[in-house]
Amino acid sequence: MGGDYAPKANVLGAIAAHELLSPNEHLVLIGDTQQIKPILAEQGFNADHFEYIHTDEVIGMGEHPTRAITQKPNSSISVGFSMLKKGEIDAFIGAGNSGAMMVGAVFSVKTVPGIIRPSLCTLVPKLNGGTGLMLDVGANADCKPDVLVQFGIVGSLYAENVMHINNPKVGLINIGEEDEKGNMLSLATFPLMKECKQFNFIGNIEGRDLFNEKADVIVCDGFTGNIMLKLAESFYVMTIQKGLKDEFFDRFNYENHGGSPVLGVNAPVIIGHGISTPKAVKNMVLQAREMITTGLVEKIQAAFK
Amino acid sequence: MGGDYAPKANVLGAIAAHELLSPNEHLVLIGDTQQIKPILAEQGFNADHFEYIHTDEVIGMGEHPTRAITQKPNSSISVGFSMLKKGEIDAFIGAGNSGAMMVGAVFSVKTVPGIIRPSLCTLVPKLNGGTGLMLDVGANADCKPDVLVQFGIVGSLYAENVMHINNPKVGLINIGEEDEKGNMLSLATFPLMKECKQFNFIGNIEGRDLFNEKADVIVCDGFTGNIMLKLAESFYVMTIQKGLKDEFFDRFNYENHGGSPVLGVNAPVIIGHGISTPKAVKNMVLQAREMITTGLVEKIQAAFK
Repeated sequence: MGGDYAPKANVLGAIAAHELLSPNEHLVLIGDTQQIKPILAEQGFNADHFEYIHTDEVIGMGEHPTRAITQKPNSSISVGFSMLKKGEIDAFIGAGNSGAMMVGAVFSVKTVPGIIRPSLCTLVPKLNGGTGLMLDVGANADCKPDVLVQFGIVGSLYAENVMHINNPKVGLINIGEEDEKGNMLSLATFPLMKECKQFNFIGNIEGRDLFNEKADVIVCDGFTGNIMLKLAESFYVMTIQKGLKDEFFDRFNYENHGGSPVLGVNAPVIIGHGISTPKAVKNMVLQAREMITTGLVEKIQAAFK
Repeated sequence: MGGDYAPKANVLGAIAAHELLSPNEHLVLIGDTQQIKPILAEQGFNADHFEYIHTDEVIGMGEHPTRAITQKPNSSISVGFSMLKKGEIDAFIGAGNSGAMMVGAVFSVKTVPGIIRPSLCTLVPKLNGGTGLMLDVGANADCKPDVLVQFGIVGSLYAENVMHINNPKVGLINIGEEDEKGNMLSLATFPLMKECKQFNFIGNIEGRDLFNEKADVIVCDGFTGNIMLKLAESFYVMTIQKGLKDEFFDRFNYENHGGSPVLGVNAPVIIGHGISTPKAVKNMVLQAREMITTGLVEKIQAAFK
């Protein structure tokens, strides 16, 4: 039920994803079945392909995350996380209230032991045709150096396993390339990253390096990452508005990537863009499948043992 | 002598600016006259139009700012600031080592009494055809809330006087529009800006608002501002590389704006881009003239009395 175009976009996305799943992979639609079923009928889609859990509450985009999760136990977000916790589903995807999705993840399946703060990632198109990962993009506005180092570890594991990048290059967002450049946070983080043996640290990168090949995993605090992400999105919107057609700019379209994975909780969770379309939902399903089949969460748990 | 194309680009820029200055406005070229004079001759330009101060040292782009300023007293940067301090020139422009320019400004003409930290600004093209001002963009990687409030005051004065924007709207870069969003710094800054009577505070703005009409003056710490600036520049470079022609993207070209004014020191100082072209240098001269004739520094001094 989450997202501006829910439930229709979500149901259409599930239908599109279904075609690409193998027979042993199942989609569970959590939401108002009275709204969901007619959409399936409209599409001439056999409703038996999905499982359904009926919910009759909806958490609005503007609601306070913690309060909403507690006060609406029969919302699709609350029910989804409860099922994820019980192991009734292997991954949970939602395009609703991001804060409630984040809080729900931490409250239900909990943070991986050893991880200080779970993080929210975004996929970044690279000029060379590849894709990078930036984290954190808003879950943690203030970060300490050891939190940033952990972002490097989980980001590297995601890039290696889910994005299939060999020995991913991890860069620290900074205001200069030189080792001694930065604010207090990046200056304190740099030596810790340099010492860390759990990822391939390539040093400081700058705002201009987001789209080039310098780093596959771009680490920053959630304040900086959120601002960079929104600035980059505004560029994409401008190129669209101006009718500037380009294959690279097309890849800015979040629809092609799916959603933002939450890294550092004990199950795969993906938060979709509020304006998620069927295509975005379909790609989130495929992204979640990849997180499940590659055992990403288990690998993150092992890294912090 | 500052900048990748010095002294030629600087001399050509001075020639172009000269055409636009009135008879009582004079340019002083500080640098190696043995290199400067042949360029003038080549252009068939009457050398008597300018004044010259010969220098025979050059501060390189990679040199340590404070050390370079002290060890090279006969560099164009050191001599320029010494002249500015003595009142022999009314404004100083340079496209060389930014750190040395910043340090030189603070060491020579000093910070305006009452100002905690001088700031470095950049001009931002707006989609509606106007121009905005963003500060700080790198002089202050770590800022306290009261420093950001002062950026609002000096930025507003620059926008009003030099950019001729009536009652400029000042926005605080943040990760959400709501009053209670942000990191510790922005959360602490918001109420101070709201209380401040010295500028028109319009609240929080996001990364996506850099180019829209929400705010004329965009306030952030120098870490965030530097990363936003470089990210935006990388987009401009991409549109060029991809041959995407658009009037708006053309306005990203720093050449059209001149350079980055240093606000909060007791004289007009402008730091040019390292790759400043003749056009950029010409526009820096015009920008400096505007800072002089509008009495910007005196107005900033009065605001902090």
